[in-house]
Amino acid sequence: MKIITNATVITVNEQNEVIYNGAVGFDGGKITYVGKTPDDLSAYSEVIDGTNKYLMPGLINTHGHVGMSLLRGFADDLPLKQWLEEKMWPMEGQFTAEHVKWGTAISIIEMIRTGTTTFVDMYDHMDTVAQEVEASGMRGVLCRGVIGFCSEEERQQKLQEAASFAVRWNGAANGRIHTMMSPHAPYTCSPEYIQQILEKAIELNVPLHIHMSESKAEVAQNEQDYGVRPVAHLENLGVFNHPTLVAHAVHLTDEEIDTLAKYDVKVAHNPISNLKLASGVARVPEMLAKGVCVSLATDSSASNNNLNLFEELKLAAILHKGVSFDPEVVPAEEALRMATRYAADAVFQKDSLGSLEEGKKADMIMLNAAQAHYHPANDPISHVVYAANGYDVTDTIVDGQFLMKDKELITMDEQKAIDEVNRVFASLNQ
Amino acid sequence: MKIITNATVITVNEQNEVIYNGAVGFDGGKITYVGKTPDDLSAYSEVIDGTNKYLMPGLINTHGHVGMSLLRGFADDLPLKQWLEEKMWPMEGQFTAEHVKWGTAISIIEMIRTGTTTFVDMYDHMDTVAQEVEASGMRGVLCRGVIGFCSEEERQQKLQEAASFAVRWNGAANGRIHTMMSPHAPYTCSPEYIQQILEKAIELNVPLHIHMSESKAEVAQNEQDYGVRPVAHLENLGVFNHPTLVAHAVHLTDEEIDTLAKYDVKVAHNPISNLKLASGVARVPEMLAKGVCVSLATDSSASNNNLNLFEELKLAAILHKGVSFDPEVVPAEEALRMATRYAADAVFQKDSLGSLEEGKKADMIMLNAAQAHYHPANDPISHVVYAANGYDVTDTIVDGQFLMKDKELITMDEQKAIDEVNRVFASLNQ
Repeated sequence: MKIITNATVITVNEQNEVIYNGAVGFDGGKITYVGKTPDDLSAYSEVIDGTNKYLMPGLINTHGHVGMSLLRGFADDLPLKQWLEEKMWPMEGQFTAEHVKWGTAISIIEMIRTGTTTFVDMYDHMDTVAQEVEASGMRGVLCRGVIGFCSEEERQQKLQEAASFAVRWNGAANGRIHTMMSPHAPYTCSPEYIQQILEKAIELNVPLHIHMSESKAEVAQNEQDYGVRPVAHLENLGVFNHPTLVAHAVHLTDEEIDTLAKYDVKVAHNPISNLKLASGVARVPEMLAKGVCVSLATDSSASNNNLNLFEELKLAAILHKGVSFDPEVVPAEEALRMATRYAADAVFQKDSLGSLEEGKKADMIMLNAAQAHYHPANDPISHVVYAANGYDVTDTIVDGQFLMKDKELITMDEQKAIDEVNRVFASLNQ
Repeated sequence: MKIITNATVITVNEQNEVIYNGAVGFDGGKITYVGKTPDDLSAYSEVIDGTNKYLMPGLINTHGHVGMSLLRGFADDLPLKQWLEEKMWPMEGQFTAEHVKWGTAISIIEMIRTGTTTFVDMYDHMDTVAQEVEASGMRGVLCRGVIGFCSEEERQQKLQEAASFAVRWNGAANGRIHTMMSPHAPYTCSPEYIQQILEKAIELNVPLHIHMSESKAEVAQNEQDYGVRPVAHLENLGVFNHPTLVAHAVHLTDEEIDTLAKYDVKVAHNPISNLKLASGVARVPEMLAKGVCVSLATDSSASNNNLNLFEELKLAAILHKGVSFDPEVVPAEEALRMATRYAADAVFQKDSLGSLEEGKKADMIMLNAAQAHYHPANDPISHVVYAANGYDVTDTIVDGQFLMKDKELITMDEQKAIDEVNRVFASLNQ
């Protein structure tokens, strides 16, 4: 048994407790103690001093495409269609497993450094992504995202590949990997194809992950193609009868928010990507008010351009105040829940992730609070959301294992990943 | 003469040049060379290796109240009136010079750490602020902000105090301190008082700095009190005939933007504070399109809640895309200019600050690009704006002097400032 002592423990439990001079004990991958630092530490084989540190749950990033970090900074500030058709797709079309491997490696390094302990990934070459998750010690919720713009034979092949991946990796890496099935979006998969993927997800008992209502144009296209907006479209297809995590959900009517609440559809809110791609601002205060589970996500580094979820944490807390002219919406503690508790719910692991509580997984991070921007030592939750930064993280622990200790990466070689990512990027025809 | 070699030099000059394997030489406080790393370095008494670093102009923060860092995290997520009247003002009313001293100290530390080399400050106890600027080696553009809610005698006393400060400190600290005169806002100063302050600014030949059109309520109040909106009000008072920097300018009509352009009024854009206080989103693309000089600023840590201008840099580049549904507005290079070149113009020092060019002041920063989020090594300007973070800054140089070297502060004692800020904060009645 190990214990971290003398820390400011931000539990994000139901009572939103902050414990000063707090401690968290853990045995293997599980939390065994959360409370004041005990006087008697003799039961613990290792005592880690958390003086001047905040200790909190690791953040959970509920939507992304880590392989795309290979395209960070390759194309910005372009209209979406041009960005996709002239820049992203021609490059991604050349990606091999090796490209995805190194894109994943730099992404995992960045997430470990900035305090993310679980990430959702929807992409191709997912065996490679899963291998990197396994080797790095991270926790992942992974799915092979399938696009139906191809022959029927290829579609069935992709579906089988996605199902095979979901079966082979679910529960792997000591339970650190969960899987999902993923029709990419209503505008890239036909209704029939979505239903086939849904049926497979039901058969395999894994959730669905899908992009939905990201842009105005997408909603208009859906109405033109199918006579209804994306929410009704997916509802009609039976998708929402199954556990589902939708990414974006930017353009919603009041009735659509009611529908998401009714079916307990989980939402991944990507505020930076939504702004950068000019998609708009999701109606987060309205969703939260109606009890929709809204979590935070980065999307990919091609539209962000990093995976530092602390940026989303702050932006989610301030953006909706500004656009609604209401300073009371999305208060700091609610934003923090969106990156932790609610995110654990969004990946269907609320009983084991998302807060520091006895019996939950030992996924946690420490922040260096001995810095000017953490003072005066007022409300730690305010400081985490509004003043802190991902690079304040000193220690990242997943499943009881240190992946970063005192800023040193334990499982990943950053310089090698940097060298390799530049090497494989240079191999692409631009 | 000193020289930094082997760096990726982001000049932010008129041609927006990026120089790979670049170097910047400087002699005392002035830049003497910008170009490729020379073969012969024998002329330089000190050679600093910039391998794997970006070298760029220090950022310029054009609006804030550094003393208010003492109230960081003290009150958040409240309606503006309640936040001000129940939280901020009762605390600020108790501030002595000692409170402002330590609030200023932690602010300067934070700015040095996150790559700001010049900051504008409008507050009280300005002698204390100026002394901290002098001692720290920072560059400051400082003004005693005056509020007219008091007796005529007190108003005249404040005006004299502001003028005395402006005279005594202008050009001090080897020219690192410039001064301005500052009527706080049209809603806190009568027209007569604003004109008296303006006359004094003309007499002393220093610019004016004023809050303007921050919230809808303020604009409506101005119309009710004076029959015109704030821009026409200040234009009518003759303010814009004098060099003026306005903070916020969130709520503007097309005609008002034309007016700001016509008089070359400088704007400090505070996107984080404007969102957090639910003031709204300034019409930055429209201002830029009409040639208004728009710069970036943090406002105070009470409404931000930090002074990390890299956060504004990214937010300015993405926010306006999202709310206008146009991914081409405020491209990365334009956002970077808002934090450097345009900001230098906004503080009326465009000939000496804001870019790395021979003859300009040696105010510059280095960023550690040997990190995952700087790779692949694509467009460095994209990486600085969209992927980087203020805590990537390793070295901060002002007037040719290192204020931070390899992450070590040279002129400031961070632990002492943290201890003192908590001590003086505890002395306040909450």
